[in-house]
Amino acid sequence: MEPVGITLVKKELTVDHLVLILDLVGTFVFALSGAMAAVRRRLDLFGVLVLSFAAATFGGITRDLLIGAVPPAAINDWRYLAVSLLAGIITFFRHPTVNRLATRVLIFDAAGLGLFAVAGTHKALSYGLNPVMAALFGMVTGIGGGVARDVLLTEIPVVLRAELYALAALAGATVVVCGAALQFPSALVSVVGAAFCFGLRYMAIRNSWKLPVAGGHEEPTEETQGTRDVKK
Amino acid sequence: MEPVGITLVKKELTVDHLVLILDLVGTFVFALSGAMAAVRRRLDLFGVLVLSFAAATFGGITRDLLIGAVPPAAINDWRYLAVSLLAGIITFFRHPTVNRLATRVLIFDAAGLGLFAVAGTHKALSYGLNPVMAALFGMVTGIGGGVARDVLLTEIPVVLRAELYALAALAGATVVVCGAALQFPSALVSVVGAAFCFGLRYMAIRNSWKLPVAGGHEEPTEETQGTRDVKK
Amino acid sequence: MEPVGITLVKKELTVDHLVLILDLVGTFVFALSGAMAAVRRRLDLFGVLVLSFAAATFGGITRDLLIGAVPPAAINDWRYLAVSLLAGIITFFRHPTVNRLATRVLIFDAAGLGLFAVAGTHKALSYGLNPVMAALFGMVTGIGGGVARDVLLTEIPVVLRAELYALAALAGATVVVCGAALQFPSALVSVVGAAFCFGLRYMAIRNSWKLPVAGGHEEPTEETQGTRDVKK
Repeated sequence: MEPVGITLVKKELTVDHLVLILDLVGTFVFALSGAMAAVRRRLDLFGVLVLSFAAATFGGITRDLLIGAVPPAAINDWRYLAVSLLAGIITFFRHPTVNRLATRVLIFDAAGLGLFAVAGTHKALSYGLNPVMAALFGMVTGIGGGVARDVLLTEIPVVLRAELYALAALAGATVVVCGAALQFPSALVSVVGAAFCFGLRYMAIRNSWKLPVAGGHEEPTEETQGTRDVKK
Repeated sequence: MEPVGITLVKKELTVDHLVLILDLVGTFVFALSGAMAAVRRRLDLFGVLVLSFAAATFGGITRDLLIGAVPPAAINDWRYLAVSLLAGIITFFRHPTVNRLATRVLIFDAAGLGLFAVAGTHKALSYGLNPVMAALFGMVTGIGGGVARDVLLTEIPVVLRAELYALAALAGATVVVCGAALQFPSALVSVVGAAFCFGLRYMAIRNSWKLPVAGGHEEPTEETQGTRDVKK
Repeated sequence: MEPVGITLVKKELTVDHLVLILDLVGTFVFALSGAMAAVRRRLDLFGVLVLSFAAATFGGITRDLLIGAVPPAAINDWRYLAVSLLAGIITFFRHPTVNRLATRVLIFDAAGLGLFAVAGTHKALSYGLNPVMAALFGMVTGIGGGVARDVLLTEIPVVLRAELYALAALAGATVVVCGAALQFPSALVSVVGAAFCFGLRYMAIRNSWKLPVAGGHEEPTEETQGTRDVKK
């Protein structure tokens, strides 16, 4: 399949380069989050590395499988693996430090979410998906890794409950889709989309914004604990 | 790949149309079941919509990935998404009503199971799979969404324990496979297959039919609770 | 895609035959482990068969999806299904016997791990993946079934914590990759790789070798129970 819209791109930065850079930075950040969750549940070194890789790449692998980009980039390109393992090893040996930076990791995680959402949307568009589905794929790329991390640790995925998590990813992806439809430059659209997603998620964390729950009466149950763990 | 057996079909209803209609009705029903489970576990609005979509489409997506129909219909065709979201929104805002209708939802769920099993088998046959595997794919299409729903909510999938659930799907799929082998008209075979699956599941619910458990002595444990929750 | 390296193979045993034989024996052993776990959690006959099939084939199916070998061998070839069901039925009706042989099943499981790791690596190499990724795919083939089994039963996958489980698979896969690079005969390399993986895992079980856990102080928690269950 021939990527569409390649002509919109400035010479100095192709969509492919852009996707790669966004992806690798996002990979590192999400691998950190997977490794920290694994260390907390006392998995051994290997388990920590697997969780790093799963949290960092599951969203992208799902996207690539579904749009027919086989073998997925995260498997075909050693850099994703290397970046994931690096993040896992750092966390394993320096986890008190990483833990102390947990709030900052949450900020990084918001940044990673924006990067993945934007990169995923670009890739889906370049495979010819329609705008609505491309935005959804951006969201899946952003939240897939967190879902895999939590399912492997037998927790209800935080992204299904945390403060505007998936909605922020969807918002960033929507910016990219609209920008592409209006033929704005990809690099500009990417920056705006990622920043919008990041900003929304950041505000949601600071102000504990939440989506409504059906019924409304809020008794804290054991099941809402996952969300609280993340905020700590 | 060229669908086989297309010549068996009456002019007024192609296999493609049939699969689409069966699929969309089944999608709505399964999305309801996913949304209700999510509301019970107190997920927020977004979580409810994700569970709707996952429960409604995971079986079909798995089938399409495995038979090489990429991108899967549930992703390429906006109607699956629209129907899933509609069911999710209705459940979110009207869940006491939906809850009161829970028994009727179980009946709908049995209907959806029949529809998905039949649609999945047709699609697998049209991609040239052998009859045994086509029947299995019909079953996977029927039960996949329920498995995804339960795994995301960290419960042992009900379909692995409920009353003849997967077996009913397999029975409906087998009818389709046999009918296709005997070159009976697709529409007739579909109706009979879906009705057979539905009837079997309906009788199993009413009479609490169960498959045997190894060993046999039946002490009710915390682990059998999932099944009971569904029946309520 | 044209398998590469087919010329390295002796006439009497092609890589395809080798992969098939290794795969089927491994399938039987892993199906046993899935069925036993299902019987312990008191799933019904059907649930036991599903767990047999999932534990036996999920690793290979994941590998085939990711390298683009669609439809996956485990689905296209009835022998995988037949072998899985056979193991499931034997376990269901003879589970006290199988249970008494649990230690021996653990030995078989180690053998299956070696067989799958080697078979998976061969297949990935024959699809042209680079050596590092081929070794990783060998590991995924080996551990994937166990992950699926545990996630379906809502347990943290044992392979993320058990004694050198995944590392043994990776070691066996690495032998195959190195052997292929040095153009040694496939059959020889397979035997050495599988034996190395088996030996490593066997020693790890006997001596309770473990990888380090971050932090180090080892208090036994409810979460480490999965590992102990397996050793019993």
